[in-house]
Amino acid sequence: MAQNDNEDRVIDHAFEFEQHHEQSSEQQQQPPQKGTRLSSKEDEASVEKVFKHLLVPTWQSQLTLRAFVFLEKSDMLKQPFTRQENTVIQTCVVASSGIAFSGGFGSYLFGMSEHVAKQSSDTSDFKNPKLGWIIAFLFVVSFLGLFSVVPLRKIMVIDFKLTYPSGTATAHLINSFHTPQGAKLAKKQVKLLGKFFSLSFLWGFFQWFYTASDGCGFQAFPSLGLKAFDNRFYFDFSALYIGVGMICPYIINISVLLGGILSWGVMWPLIKTREGHWYKANLGDSDLQGIQGYRVFIAIAMILGDGLYNFVKVLTHTLLGLYNQIGNKRKASALPIADQDSTSSPEADISYDDQRRKQLFIKDQIPRWFAVGGYVAIASISTATLPHIIPQLKWYYILVIYLIAPTLAFCNAYGCGLTDWSLASTYGKLAIFTIGAWAGASHGGVLASLAACGVMMNIVSTASDLMQDFKTGYLTLASPRSMFVSQIIGTAMGCVISPCVFWIFYKAFPDLGTHKSQYPAPYAIVYRNMAILGVQGFGSLPNNCLLLCYIFFGTAIVINLIKDLVGKVGRFIPLPMAMAIPFYLGPYFAIDMCVGSLILFVWETVDKAKADAFAPAVASGLICGDGIWTLPASILALFGVKPPICMKFLSRATNSRVDTFLGN
Amino acid sequence: MAQNDNEDRVIDHAFEFEQHHEQSSEQQQQPPQKGTRLSSKEDEASVEKVFKHLLVPTWQSQLTLRAFVFLEKSDMLKQPFTRQENTVIQTCVVASSGIAFSGGFGSYLFGMSEHVAKQSSDTSDFKNPKLGWIIAFLFVVSFLGLFSVVPLRKIMVIDFKLTYPSGTATAHLINSFHTPQGAKLAKKQVKLLGKFFSLSFLWGFFQWFYTASDGCGFQAFPSLGLKAFDNRFYFDFSALYIGVGMICPYIINISVLLGGILSWGVMWPLIKTREGHWYKANLGDSDLQGIQGYRVFIAIAMILGDGLYNFVKVLTHTLLGLYNQIGNKRKASALPIADQDSTSSPEADISYDDQRRKQLFIKDQIPRWFAVGGYVAIASISTATLPHIIPQLKWYYILVIYLIAPTLAFCNAYGCGLTDWSLASTYGKLAIFTIGAWAGASHGGVLASLAACGVMMNIVSTASDLMQDFKTGYLTLASPRSMFVSQIIGTAMGCVISPCVFWIFYKAFPDLGTHKSQYPAPYAIVYRNMAILGVQGFGSLPNNCLLLCYIFFGTAIVINLIKDLVGKVGRFIPLPMAMAIPFYLGPYFAIDMCVGSLILFVWETVDKAKADAFAPAVASGLICGDGIWTLPASILALFGVKPPICMKFLSRATNSRVDTFLGN
Repeated sequence: MAQNDNEDRVIDHAFEFEQHHEQSSEQQQQPPQKGTRLSSKEDEASVEKVFKHLLVPTWQSQLTLRAFVFLEKSDMLKQPFTRQENTVIQTCVVASSGIAFSGGFGSYLFGMSEHVAKQSSDTSDFKNPKLGWIIAFLFVVSFLGLFSVVPLRKIMVIDFKLTYPSGTATAHLINSFHTPQGAKLAKKQVKLLGKFFSLSFLWGFFQWFYTASDGCGFQAFPSLGLKAFDNRFYFDFSALYIGVGMICPYIINISVLLGGILSWGVMWPLIKTREGHWYKANLGDSDLQGIQGYRVFIAIAMILGDGLYNFVKVLTHTLLGLYNQIGNKRKASALPIADQDSTSSPEADISYDDQRRKQLFIKDQIPRWFAVGGYVAIASISTATLPHIIPQLKWYYILVIYLIAPTLAFCNAYGCGLTDWSLASTYGKLAIFTIGAWAGASHGGVLASLAACGVMMNIVSTASDLMQDFKTGYLTLASPRSMFVSQIIGTAMGCVISPCVFWIFYKAFPDLGTHKSQYPAPYAIVYRNMAILGVQGFGSLPNNCLLLCYIFFGTAIVINLIKDLVGKVGRFIPLPMAMAIPFYLGPYFAIDMCVGSLILFVWETVDKAKADAFAPAVASGLICGDGIWTLPASILALFGVKPPICMKFLSRATNSRVDTFLGN
Repeated sequence: MAQNDNEDRVIDHAFEFEQHHEQSSEQQQQPPQKGTRLSSKEDEASVEKVFKHLLVPTWQSQLTLRAFVFLEKSDMLKQPFTRQENTVIQTCVVASSGIAFSGGFGSYLFGMSEHVAKQSSDTSDFKNPKLGWIIAFLFVVSFLGLFSVVPLRKIMVIDFKLTYPSGTATAHLINSFHTPQGAKLAKKQVKLLGKFFSLSFLWGFFQWFYTASDGCGFQAFPSLGLKAFDNRFYFDFSALYIGVGMICPYIINISVLLGGILSWGVMWPLIKTREGHWYKANLGDSDLQGIQGYRVFIAIAMILGDGLYNFVKVLTHTLLGLYNQIGNKRKASALPIADQDSTSSPEADISYDDQRRKQLFIKDQIPRWFAVGGYVAIASISTATLPHIIPQLKWYYILVIYLIAPTLAFCNAYGCGLTDWSLASTYGKLAIFTIGAWAGASHGGVLASLAACGVMMNIVSTASDLMQDFKTGYLTLASPRSMFVSQIIGTAMGCVISPCVFWIFYKAFPDLGTHKSQYPAPYAIVYRNMAILGVQGFGSLPNNCLLLCYIFFGTAIVINLIKDLVGKVGRFIPLPMAMAIPFYLGPYFAIDMCVGSLILFVWETVDKAKADAFAPAVASGLICGDGIWTLPASILALFGVKPPICMKFLSRATNSRVDTFLGN
């Protein structure tokens, strides 16, 4: 995943480390949705012409040992280190560290423990962490995400031309490391990327000092006023999202902003006026039975509507293609089916870069039967094994999850491609509610739903991670096959390493996860409470929430239909998927992204040629610098080094009270 | 004045308005101390070549009616509006508004009132404000400053090549308004100036929202940590001082920083360890009997040492020149004496701009006998009149002040030329202490010293203002004569307008100057308390303070001697005057200035030609934009509109206490 939703960002210090630094991953030289730009002054701006004289290694030779053990100084470096190997390394690292997040050590998994159960209202059922079953659990659930979206890679990356901003930024970074001598423009781009990388990193470092606790620092800067801030409208000075905004197409940024305005500017304030009628008063802002329920479930409904529409569309196209192909008695070519329509309708003005990338992306296929077979095989093993690990999770729950999961994995990978947000934990919540409601309180529903959450999160999270990596691979000419193998190796590593790291902390800090601990796990309790709520069924949702969900689910489908029917004008219609993301998170990151858009727009107005050549480098620098900063930040947190200062924002009235209190 | 010391910046809202917007004044195209730069690519970079074809009006025709009544749309505008007229306008406005500060309505003058006396420990003596005597008082004291430094303008501006950053920035702004069509480089400079002007203005505007009370906002940003902030080491994001730093020569910025480190980094912390021995414990940070006493008086001592050295040096040169001239029977030329040495030793590589500016600056002379005669005449009238207005202020006190004042006026104008800080109120404090000690408590010393403070402040403040304006005039080819006349007219206007504005507030708000008032005048009480302290004599100063003053006074002279004796290497030795300013104010603005230096340094390293051409425009934009913002800010304050948010900085420990208090 590129960026997880709000709450997971603060899970617990020990695991934030791995959960975030994959932002520091990924990139590309010209965003492909803006690829047409290249054709004009191609010779100068082409990335792949710069790399033309370098041989792209076969997929097997991209999977070198050094790519996995990182022996930079070893004898093995007599062969030049290629950007493809570099991509393989980072894919492996991302996959490995991604497990620290989807493993749920700060959320669902730890939420099952006795420790956390005692802090919740339902102590009847618990399962304490043990190294053995955690590793086993992760092994049987973590590989499904990979197999579920692998067949869709061409559709996502080439046909839909999804941006995957973090993936794009990483590809830029990798290309920049490997730029050959003599490439003048490329060198300039590398220099600019380096400059903005450093700036962004230092800015992250500077911000850190002022973030002593929640609600402190630039990330809580009420830059548009306190009233707007209360509705999460603020510019939070995030270099990362400014960069993402510069890479995403304008329509995405506008969609996200529109969604933010619709939800946090109109709907939630309106619903809040019904407090006491639609939902119980004084519930707190993050209570799913209150306003938060509307936020989460309406967002899910809209995302599902959009995702489902596109999933069905893709499926129909594929089946139609398959049907035609069989009808035509395979006379077209021996190429696999998914690649059929692209070879039959090549774009006339496709740039050299796009051509070359496409060619290499398509060259090494992962056969469809392999993906489907793998998914079915692992799902079967998983369905058979999981009830032995967590008896409350019946085999038929698992089967249903595995039937639905590929659709949700598609939704998440698609949404992440548009906006860089992976909403894995949101899908996890959906699983908690559905499985919880199904199982009910009397049949160990709490544990069943927490485990189901884990299964779901692992699938959707690894799916979006993999697709980000495919984007990186596409832009660095790494073979999809080597990427896939690397993902599998990385995931396997993560399934062992992450539980071990957790285990060390669990044993070293007996109070882990309590309020007093240096490493509290607030979200473990939140997840458990959600599960306790979930077993009461959908009736526990606030009034009219389900109705609104249906409406937004339908609206998402209708908007997509209109987009497809009106033809070219359709690209001016906002995307429901992008609109839905701020529903739950708040529009602050939409504002960052729009600032990025604005910067790009002004730059393009002033000097189109320069903007085209350098904006992706600047954006990638911003994204990667901020992303990499999370690595030292997490290490600091791990060692209990806390920022010294709180930059706090108070209204004038509150400020006088505080001044009086402090005796100034 | 360009910038007044700390406390006066917050005097009272009503008068801040006029007291500050003169920062928005003043400027130039290439800082003269960097004038040699021009010679290389002169044709392109010369400002005056751009204006070459435009006739410079005679000094009388620079003093048009429209320059004083600002009738931009009147018929009088059939004649093109010249930059010289523009300069004359701003000089007039600065002089007029300067009186609002030096009039002391928020400090010494109001400190005489019964109102304030009742809030102090000595109510024996007071003098309530009355429109009549205030106007009379201002008229007899405000013109002396002008006459006292007029003869020194050539020494300050041409010989010493002092920067006067605000004056330089204003000249830039004015030149930019009047840049003729077709001047390509100049147009680019104007555009850049405009851009940074807007940025700086908007930045000031943005900052305003977060400054709900003292200690809030970017101006209290502990950017180097809380510990450093306690010792006033912080970068306060002031666009104005970054601009000033870009205009001031490196050695000035380094001197200021060194002074800051010496005083706030070493001396004050050391002295603080003697709390309870050298001075009474628990006195509060701003008590002159405590640590503040060391800060203020050691700063004064060092400034006086440097100022006196340079004053004597100039005097000696002048007298020697006079002696030689008489000895040579005036065979050299008919030029006035002060201009002698520059005509006899013209620089070989002087640029076109410098040549032309010098020529016009010297053309219209203000005869020395006129300045001296004027000073003596006004001083006599003043000495005779003042005791009638304020009987406690004996005529011999006044006479002594007028004997010393020109030296101090020189010091202040000199220091302001180096660093942009006018320390008028610091000289005022000196007057409070010396006259207070002389008069003693029994002879109405409190009122005498407050009045003496007023006399002193008016002289030194108008002196530095005038010199800033001369710098602006020098760079816009405005005649010194018209500048001088304009200053006199402006001062006269200020002597009437400022008391009237004060009078309106005094009558409209009967609680003016009390803590409860919308317009409190905290410094009126501070000044009165200083006076009460002053009448106890220098014995009331903390231990060793006088000794340290002698040492620093001597050191300043010795450093200057060394600078002059070692020849060319001397320019690498820090300037005591610049070093002394942060002694009292704290080094925060030194850090801003050094950031400006750093930006310039990097820019010059990357692209010397561009930096030379555009840095002054950028700096001027930064200075003027921030300066102009104080105008709307003051209007907002005047109408009681307060910023809504406090951006507060708390240590982590304090923050938890506050969070608990606020119930989060």
